[in-house]
Amino acid sequence: MSEVLHAPNPARRARRPDAIVHVCVTCRAGEDGTQRPGVRLADALEADLAGDSNIRVERIECLSVCKRPCTLALSGRGKWTYVVADLDNEGHVADVCAGARLYAASSDGIVPWRERPLPFRKNVVSRTPPRGI
Amino acid sequence: MSEVLHAPNPARRARRPDAIVHVCVTCRAGEDGTQRPGVRLADALEADLAGDSNIRVERIECLSVCKRPCTLALSGRGKWTYVVADLDNEGHVADVCAGARLYAASSDGIVPWRERPLPFRKNVVSRTPPRGI
Repeated sequence: MSEVLHAPNPARRARRPDAIVHVCVTCRAGEDGTQRPGVRLADALEADLAGDSNIRVERIECLSVCKRPCTLALSGRGKWTYVVADLDNEGHVADVCAGARLYAASSDGIVPWRERPLPFRKNVVSRTPPRGI
Repeated sequence: MSEVLHAPNPARRARRPDAIVHVCVTCRAGEDGTQRPGVRLADALEADLAGDSNIRVERIECLSVCKRPCTLALSGRGKWTYVVADLDNEGHVADVCAGARLYAASSDGIVPWRERPLPFRKNVVSRTPPRGI
């Protein structure tokens, strides 16, 4: 059999990811209000996280942080959910990927402060507890 | 048997509430920074919601909305989670209770705009999707 047949089934593995990156694709930006930077951020994250089968990128209609695009939330089973805003759809892609990987690897979603990429220190909008807390 | 023995067991019913009100009790306020208005808000909500066995009030250490006390989050199984800030620990108690009851009665956490008490229109910090979206 070819190597391809031994590859993990992405659909199966994605059913219980260690992290979900929910990207708001609703907010508009630009002088004429026609741009949707969240769509481009989601595209970039999907491309860069394509090899991370434990992280899923999901597009969300409105995270209610409408004045601070781009906005995303990180969630995972048993973990605190973090909302982060004011993200540049190009300049922050690497930081978001690094933060999502650290979050995925954590047990409760709380990454030690010093390890957090800058947007996860400076741009946090809110955090909410995992179910059961 | 007395009526009391037929009353629902609060501990049992509270295991799967229709809404959890997570109140941040960490933020300090007041000129000398010694007051913790979230503690008083949580006390008031617990008293006013004591008869609502489907709603649970929980005290949380930090929702990361530190500059806008009081802050709380509403969550429930299968529902969007809402974070609301700038709440007065006395003046907003009735509105928060009303909002929590509407949220508890909703299927997905989304209360029609016109029915929402004012803080749930004006003071929303963020919302995040239920698991599975």
